[in-house]
Formats: sequence, structure tokens, C-alpha cells
Amino acid sequence: LDKGNTDMPVNTIEWINNKVRIIDQTELPLKTIYKEYSTPQEVWEAIKKLRVRGAPAIGVAGAFGVCLGIQTSTSTSYPAFKQELDTVADYLKNCRPTAVNLSWAIERMRRTSEDNKSLPIDKLINILKAEAIRIFEEDKLMCRQMGEFGATLIQDGWTVLTHCNAGGLATADYGTALAVIYKAVEQGKNIKVYADETRPLLQGARLTAWELMQNGIDVTVICDNMAAMVMGQGKINAVFVGADRIARNGDTANKIGTYGVAILAKHHRIPFYIVAPSSTIDPNIPDGAHIPIEERAAEEITCGFGKQTAPDGVKVYNPAFDVTPAGLITAWVTDKGILQPPFDKN
Amino acid sequence: LDKGNTDMPVNTIEWINNKVRIIDQTELPLKTIYKEYSTPQEVWEAIKKLRVRGAPAIGVAGAFGVCLGIQTSTSTSYPAFKQELDTVADYLKNCRPTAVNLSWAIERMRRTSEDNKSLPIDKLINILKAEAIRIFEEDKLMCRQMGEFGATLIQDGWTVLTHCNAGGLATADYGTALAVIYKAVEQGKNIKVYADETRPLLQGARLTAWELMQNGIDVTVICDNMAAMVMGQGKINAVFVGADRIARNGDTANKIGTYGVAILAKHHRIPFYIVAPSSTIDPNIPDGAHIPIEERAAEEITCGFGKQTAPDGVKVYNPAFDVTPAGLITAWVTDKGILQPPFDKN
Repeated sequence: LDKGNTDMPVNTIEWINNKVRIIDQTELPLKTIYKEYSTPQEVWEAIKKLRVRGAPAIGVAGAFGVCLGIQTSTSTSYPAFKQELDTVADYLKNCRPTAVNLSWAIERMRRTSEDNKSLPIDKLINILKAEAIRIFEEDKLMCRQMGEFGATLIQDGWTVLTHCNAGGLATADYGTALAVIYKAVEQGKNIKVYADETRPLLQGARLTAWELMQNGIDVTVICDNMAAMVMGQGKINAVFVGADRIARNGDTANKIGTYGVAILAKHHRIPFYIVAPSSTIDPNIPDGAHIPIEERAAEEITCGFGKQTAPDGVKVYNPAFDVTPAGLITAWVTDKGILQPPFDKN
Repeated sequence: LDKGNTDMPVNTIEWINNKVRIIDQTELPLKTIYKEYSTPQEVWEAIKKLRVRGAPAIGVAGAFGVCLGIQTSTSTSYPAFKQELDTVADYLKNCRPTAVNLSWAIERMRRTSEDNKSLPIDKLINILKAEAIRIFEEDKLMCRQMGEFGATLIQDGWTVLTHCNAGGLATADYGTALAVIYKAVEQGKNIKVYADETRPLLQGARLTAWELMQNGIDVTVICDNMAAMVMGQGKINAVFVGADRIARNGDTANKIGTYGVAILAKHHRIPFYIVAPSSTIDPNIPDGAHIPIEERAAEEITCGFGKQTAPDGVKVYNPAFDVTPAGLITAWVTDKGILQPPFDKN
């Protein structure tokens, strides 16, 4: 697989010297601050506050967080060790509910432990750390694979709309939806991007615009409510977004606003693609109605960026994700290939 | 006509002691600050900066601004007076391009002058001031009429979605779209409202939420990109929004994001109503493609909340309005009655 020319300007998440190092995404784009964590509690806080975010990246963070919790274990028996592992695994798994990658990665750590429970604890710890690094490395590889497959859907000269950040900052490598764009650009295609700012936390304006600019890609920021007009002007050839969880029937949870973008794309007959690694598919859930949707604090809307912008005591509804029904999705781009509908059959 | 029980908590715009008094809407909801203006330049600045906003209200502001410009005229001949009037009229008319009410009110002032050009200048000035006050009073009346007609479309127990602010703060009285809600509530109907926050300037979160709360109406603020999800949950019975200009075929310019809301409403089979006084209809324009759309500064998006939220030098597209094609509009509620499609025939 071609590693390509795109060097992501940041290392979103890494395992260095038995610590987890992340770039604090709440400080971007104004400050580039890296943070090192040595406890699961710090990782939990970083996930909760969206210092590290994006479904694939929080999967990696969860696996690394488990390592932090067990690497200094002094347990001498497997049952005692398992109890330690379960405690930290359950703690991290419940930090954010919607992205399935978090529980997927943590359950994989738990299975790896079970599969090696006859080993001495120190050996088991090393195996678990290797497994977390494997999750990280596999995520990098999956980004490249999604980029390869997805780039076949983009023609030279196209302008693409994206929502939220499904880029390098959401993964261990160069993204899901943005991997497709990076790869198309590497192939010599001339691609422009419109980035929805993505209220309330502005991941599009703060993160997607920043990483595309760092990589020299032409990006224009719009407010979420301008996407319809831009589509109506005929400026958009395709929509590419990421995913936080894909149900068995293809219904896809992603950042709030994605469902609306999908409806607008359908109205304007613009193809609408989901790009996500296979770790985002949840075979245990039949459809979107069963995906838990995180609701977040009202202050994200009423006091978003340093200033109160709504009346005291106003009622607010702040779901962090929505579900796009499979019927609105043109295709799913995964690391295994492009899935056409019907999702469950294919 | 029933004046109703709703007392708007503010006087959006008034003519007092030969000055224009407005509430500074850029300070709401945190501060209630009234400002008095005695020059057209101050009124121009207030319109440009959205201290006074909303198509009907800026029409009234334009007429009052003309009065400020000519009330101390020392011209002794009509041609000299007319030159003064034209100068101030042209100046104010070009302050903001999309809402036709501004040019409508100003041209009405100009016609009134022409119709009375044989009078002595001091008498003519008094007639022009009376005309501006008539525009103001007519706007109040039209709000009540729109409320009466529109309330027939709302059933007890309904939840309504609105976008931007089409309330008392956008008019001389209690609004256009919100007049419908105020009137329905006066009739004893139990009505709940979802208010899109309306990026970039947050007129929904700052103004609509504030005035509905002042009037004891149940309002929930959402980000613009949450409207699709709320509709998908079956929570919304109807959408009511205002307008800045309605073309001859019914295509309607309104605050950016309205077009998207109309598409979402159609997808969910929710009725979508425009509420606007007859002063908003522009018979000189055949369709929406001919409506001039104001673009505003990038900083409204990149530094909207007192803090920079996008990278330095990022490209931004910031149209202040969009056009909803007549085909997406269930009906237009005006002061003369409810217009069903086709708009041009009816």
C-alpha cells in the first residue's frame, strides 16, 4: 500500500515511554499543545472533554488508557489482574456512549487478556501493550485503505463538502472522510473542500480547516446552515463524512448535523458517502434506533466560545450525534472496500 | 382588530422628540440598551451593524432616517429640498441590499415628497414625518393582521420551529412569524417553540429565545444543524419563518439557513410557512435568482463569540440570506390573508 506524500502535521495520539501523548484539540487552531498522560483518569478526562476525539482516535485512546491502568499491576494471580483490568476497562468504556470504536477497542483488550490468561502477569502486560499498539497501527493502515478505495469515487476538479472533522485529528493517521481527499490530492486531482463549521464545538472550523490548510488543500469554512445554499448553487459534487457507529442495516450515527446534510444532498442529487473503518460497524445493533446518542451540556450552545449568547436559564437541546438512515447513504467506504446498499446484504 | 394581551417587552424602534430610538440588538440578551439617533449616519451604522434588524424594522428605520436627514432643511425651493432628500434616501437605501422593505419605505418617502412638492418646505417636512410614522403604525397593524391569519394554521398543543428572529424585535410590533405564535397563545392554545440559534449572528438564541421567554412561551434553543434530528423525532408540527424579500413567483429570501430548513420540512412532510407583510413583496423581481444577496464579513464566522474559532487566513463564505424556491413553501401568511401556491396567481 502506498504511504503517499501526505505528512500529517500532528501526531494525534501516540504511545511514548509508557505514556499516552495527545495533541489537545480543544486548543486548536490557535495553540498546538501536546499533553502526556500516565493515568486512565487523565485519558478519561481527555476523551470526555474532547481533547482527543473522533471515533477511531478514541478507540486507540481507550486501548492505551487500559495499558496505563494495568502496566504497573502488582497482581500475582490472573483473577486479581483480571479484576484490575475490568475496573479500568469498564471505567473507560462508559466515558462516551456513541462511538462504538471505544468499546470495540476495550473489549478487544479484554479478549486478548482472556486469550493469554495462562501467562505470567508481566508477560501478559507486555502482550496487552503490544495489542494496543496493534490497534493503533491497524487504524493507521485502515486510514490508508479507506483513502485508496474512496479516492476512486472522486474526480479531478471536484468540490467536496464535509461535516465535523473526520481527518487526521480523528484517527491515528490521516483520517476517514479526509483520507479520501488526501489520497485524491496525492493522485494529482485538484480538489476543493467546503467544511461545515459544525456547531456547537466547531470541529469543522477549528480542526478540519486547520489540517486541510496545513496540507495545502483549498478549504472554505461555512456555517452549517449555509450547506443547502452552497449545494443549491451547484458547487458541491459529493459529500464525504465519517461515522461513530454503523448499525447492522447501515443506519449510521455521526456528528450532529450529518442527518440534515444527507437530506440536503438527496434533495440536490449529490452523492453522500460515509467513510469509516470496520471497527465502526456494530454487528450487535440491528438499526439506528438502537444507537445510544450522547447529550452534552447546554453551555456548549449557550456559552460556546467565551461569551454567553443566549438568555439565562433558556432551555436547550444538545444531542452530540444524529443517525442517518441507510436509505440516504449512497455508499459506505471502509478499509475492506466500498459497500453499496443494501448494507446488510453487501 | 384585537390588540391582544401580548405586551412586547421592548420598543424595537420609535420616533421620539424628533429622534430615532432603538433597542441595540447586538447587546441582547445580556444588556437592554436603548440608543437615540439624530443623524442619518447613525441610523445607517445601526442598520449596517444589525443594532436594528429584521426586514420590517429596517424599513421603518429607513423612513425615520430620511426624516432625520431633512427635518432641519433650510432649502427654500423644492428642487433644492429634493436634492437633500435624494441624497439621504440613496445613502440609506444602499445600506443593506436584501430586505426590500428598506427601499420600499424610502421610495414611499420619496413619492410622498413628489406628491406634495407644491407645498412650502416646512409643511412638506411635517407631511414626510407623518408619512414615516404612518409606515411605523401600518407595520404594527400588519403584525396584528398576520398574527390573526396565521394563528388559524396552528392547533392547540403544537410545537413550532422557527429560524432567526421574526418577532417583535424585527418589526414595530410583535413580529411576523412570532406574531402567529403570540396570537395562537393569546387564543389559549398551548404552543411550544424550537428556535434555531441561527449562525453566524445567533438571532435565534439571542433574540427569539429572549423575547419568547419574556412573553412566557416555552422555547428550546437548538443549533441549526439539530433541526433535522428534531424533525425526525416527530417533535415539529409546523415551521414558521419571516422573509426579507418575496419575488413575483413566490421565491422568498430570508435569513441564511431558511432554504435548508424548508428542504428538511419537505423531507419530513411538515408544513413550511412564510409570514411577511405586503411591504416584503417585490413586484419588480420575477424570481429568486434576481434577489441581491448580502455577503458579510468573514469575522462573523471566524470570531463570532469573542474568540477566534478558525485558523488565521482561512477562506470563508458568509452569505447573510438564502432563497427558498416557492415550490418548498406551503403558504405565505400576509397582512391581507393566507396565500396558497401558486403565489403569482393568488
